[in-house]
Amino acid sequence: MTIRLTMWNEGRHEKNDPPVAKIYPDGMDGALAAGFGDRDFTIERRTIDDPEQGLTQELLDRTDVLTWWGHVAHDEVKDEYIDRVQQRVLAGMGLVVLHSGHHSKMFRRMVGTNANLSWRELPEGDLERVWTILPNHPIADGVPPFFEIPASEMYGEPFDIPAPDEIVFLSWYKGGEVFRSGLTFYRGLGRIFYFSPGHETFPIYHHPMVQHVIGNGIEWAMQPHKPSRKLDNWHRKEPIHR
Amino acid sequence: MTIRLTMWNEGRHEKNDPPVAKIYPDGMDGALAAGFGDRDFTIERRTIDDPEQGLTQELLDRTDVLTWWGHVAHDEVKDEYIDRVQQRVLAGMGLVVLHSGHHSKMFRRMVGTNANLSWRELPEGDLERVWTILPNHPIADGVPPFFEIPASEMYGEPFDIPAPDEIVFLSWYKGGEVFRSGLTFYRGLGRIFYFSPGHETFPIYHHPMVQHVIGNGIEWAMQPHKPSRKLDNWHRKEPIHR
Amino acid sequence: MTIRLTMWNEGRHEKNDPPVAKIYPDGMDGALAAGFGDRDFTIERRTIDDPEQGLTQELLDRTDVLTWWGHVAHDEVKDEYIDRVQQRVLAGMGLVVLHSGHHSKMFRRMVGTNANLSWRELPEGDLERVWTILPNHPIADGVPPFFEIPASEMYGEPFDIPAPDEIVFLSWYKGGEVFRSGLTFYRGLGRIFYFSPGHETFPIYHHPMVQHVIGNGIEWAMQPHKPSRKLDNWHRKEPIHR
Amino acid sequence: MTIRLTMWNEGRHEKNDPPVAKIYPDGMDGALAAGFGDRDFTIERRTIDDPEQGLTQELLDRTDVLTWWGHVAHDEVKDEYIDRVQQRVLAGMGLVVLHSGHHSKMFRRMVGTNANLSWRELPEGDLERVWTILPNHPIADGVPPFFEIPASEMYGEPFDIPAPDEIVFLSWYKGGEVFRSGLTFYRGLGRIFYFSPGHETFPIYHHPMVQHVIGNGIEWAMQPHKPSRKLDNWHRKEPIHR
Repeated sequence: MTIRLTMWNEGRHEKNDPPVAKIYPDGMDGALAAGFGDRDFTIERRTIDDPEQGLTQELLDRTDVLTWWGHVAHDEVKDEYIDRVQQRVLAGMGLVVLHSGHHSKMFRRMVGTNANLSWRELPEGDLERVWTILPNHPIADGVPPFFEIPASEMYGEPFDIPAPDEIVFLSWYKGGEVFRSGLTFYRGLGRIFYFSPGHETFPIYHHPMVQHVIGNGIEWAMQPHKPSRKLDNWHRKEPIHR
Repeated sequence: MTIRLTMWNEGRHEKNDPPVAKIYPDGMDGALAAGFGDRDFTIERRTIDDPEQGLTQELLDRTDVLTWWGHVAHDEVKDEYIDRVQQRVLAGMGLVVLHSGHHSKMFRRMVGTNANLSWRELPEGDLERVWTILPNHPIADGVPPFFEIPASEMYGEPFDIPAPDEIVFLSWYKGGEVFRSGLTFYRGLGRIFYFSPGHETFPIYHHPMVQHVIGNGIEWAMQPHKPSRKLDNWHRKEPIHR
Repeated sequence: MTIRLTMWNEGRHEKNDPPVAKIYPDGMDGALAAGFGDRDFTIERRTIDDPEQGLTQELLDRTDVLTWWGHVAHDEVKDEYIDRVQQRVLAGMGLVVLHSGHHSKMFRRMVGTNANLSWRELPEGDLERVWTILPNHPIADGVPPFFEIPASEMYGEPFDIPAPDEIVFLSWYKGGEVFRSGLTFYRGLGRIFYFSPGHETFPIYHHPMVQHVIGNGIEWAMQPHKPSRKLDNWHRKEPIHR
Repeated sequence: MTIRLTMWNEGRHEKNDPPVAKIYPDGMDGALAAGFGDRDFTIERRTIDDPEQGLTQELLDRTDVLTWWGHVAHDEVKDEYIDRVQQRVLAGMGLVVLHSGHHSKMFRRMVGTNANLSWRELPEGDLERVWTILPNHPIADGVPPFFEIPASEMYGEPFDIPAPDEIVFLSWYKGGEVFRSGLTFYRGLGRIFYFSPGHETFPIYHHPMVQHVIGNGIEWAMQPHKPSRKLDNWHRKEPIHR
């Protein structure tokens, strides 16, 4: 079944930081999209500088899965759009939150915590090794026991989140840290996947295995539209037997 | 150890609805407080009509556990105070959310969902039987296998919440429904207890076992102040070994 | 994809209790199988009185999902066959445990507890109402908000099990109890579904919605064979970087 | 409240391997016990070579918390004693499983999986860094954000266990692996803590922070004896309301 994918990418680094623009001439979302291969996705791309910050109701209504990458402009995203996206997720739209999106209003809204973490950005990056700890999870399909990202921004524990529903990946950093790097959260009828690898100054979104994992995450977050499952329809008031 | 308890009670029903005022002449919070017996609580009481809606930073800073009852004025609570309480919970303050508080901005903020449920309010109420399903949990201490509330408002499944960290109580209603009625959620350094029994038009907060459970919930949500455990202090940037 | 289903049914009640034989002339497993409609299952049926108690290695090796119904002969099942089935589940075979199977060696082995519960068998049975609390779960597909079993054996809380990975159904009994009646457990590479409705002296396995839920459970427990996912292959000893 | 602690230590390495005996002249359990400082423990020590393999019913009945270290003689432990210990844990006795105890019949019985993992034992050991990811958990009390074990046996993911109830510690190894190294499991009325650091050929049980964590784990696993909480007493058959 075709997945109607919307890639929301803040888009400011690509516009304002020449080094980032050089690594990602078509944007970080473009780099990812180029790696989805023959997956059955129809893709629309939006940035914070599009009308209604790229989050119109009409677009969300026809979106099956939304990816979210943000960083320097988290605070600019209007609360009314956060509300809007939240309601679509609760109604069944998938949400894939990428890297620095852990600190977005969007992710914090869905999990209820600050989502703080340790981090370190070195010019040369840190070697990150991503371990698969739930090998039978759909998101781990085709992923080896571990894969490496030669230069990554370190994200470390403690990661201030509620207990995830599933921990699919754990990361090891040469600098000495560990991190829960691939996580699922079930909220309402929606599925959320958080994946930490990915950064604007490293070519991580060109990495085939990172593209593969995110592609898997999008497919996993997709849920067929089932109007009969709409939770609101299930709430009733009449006593059944008195 | 003495628990500095703040009882936040919206306070509108008691003020505006004579039948409620008759059942709860000292407020729903007052009825509960009268049932805490010799528990080591120092109690302050606030309503939405107090300065800063009863949620000053200074008060929250000296509060170990906050109870929250709201209903008709959920929308009036200002977002800035919700932010404030959220940050205190994440920093370790306990939060006990009561009955219709499931739909408060406060609870929804902490769990990330709409927290919708089925409900029914009959003039004569529904018989509710509360079952203890985690008998060894501290909140269940001294609670029998089940106890009954002769006249209750029905709250029924599906309850739109993330998977709770623990399910302590399940409720049965004579009208035919079931409900996850006593739940814990861990968020940041704080502990949250939700307990559904309790309503403005029924004398449920005069019920000794309801008072007992809520007293237990407050003691469980209390966490000794440990500045060294402040998560912010744990986040570092320097590589350990290179 | 065709699911190779093995239905393991103790088979003693049907053989020794005329009233049961009358309700289930083709066995409880036969009644269920008749209700699977056009699901893509190839079914083999076994009882405890078959060679190797119906649990040969060769059969298990070609089984995708195993259903388990037992009651009076739990203790007769040899430990070596329990070991055998456990290893197949851990290697990815699905397991659907039915009704009194909660007390089987098989279920206890997989969950590690005694799985005790409250129960009551009345000649006329108890009305049981099964509530769907995870409406978006695959096992709940096509299941209404609730359905009723006019005459059921009561199974009540507290149910001595580890926290399930998911709670799909909760049951209400007219006699006044509640029960976590539809549960999932992830163990190794295998998926386990426990569903409590079903009893030898009531025609519950002829109930179309019970048949539907169990059919869903079998499909959910099925996992495509992926040799590369075999956990043993993932364990290594060589240091990666020294 | 005094905790009646029984330390069950297989005891074969200390007896048969001179290098181990040199590192642990009073046994691994003795080394640990020497580090419990002024904790309120009364300690009894047993090995597999004691009568009834050190696991008499009478001893278990007066034990609040049992630690378990085993390795070369896992298979010698008789099933009847595993049954016995399991029943005491389900009835409320705490269980602290150490290092290679992950592969003991005892641990596998409680979790239902094979508990396989990756491992590597180098003559010089691997540097292990233990990260605290639930800083507010009682077992993490007084534990810094991370601590190091200069020479450790590597235990790596994937670790074949059910989802733990809580993940308190994650380990990083210089060789490149990660591991869920401090875990809790709730089973029946009992609490189980698994902690991986500790090995017979490295002096890990002389490490003050390892001793501190295990001491915390014992205190956390202790539960006051509450006969009224005995689950068996809670199971009833009579209908409440008909």
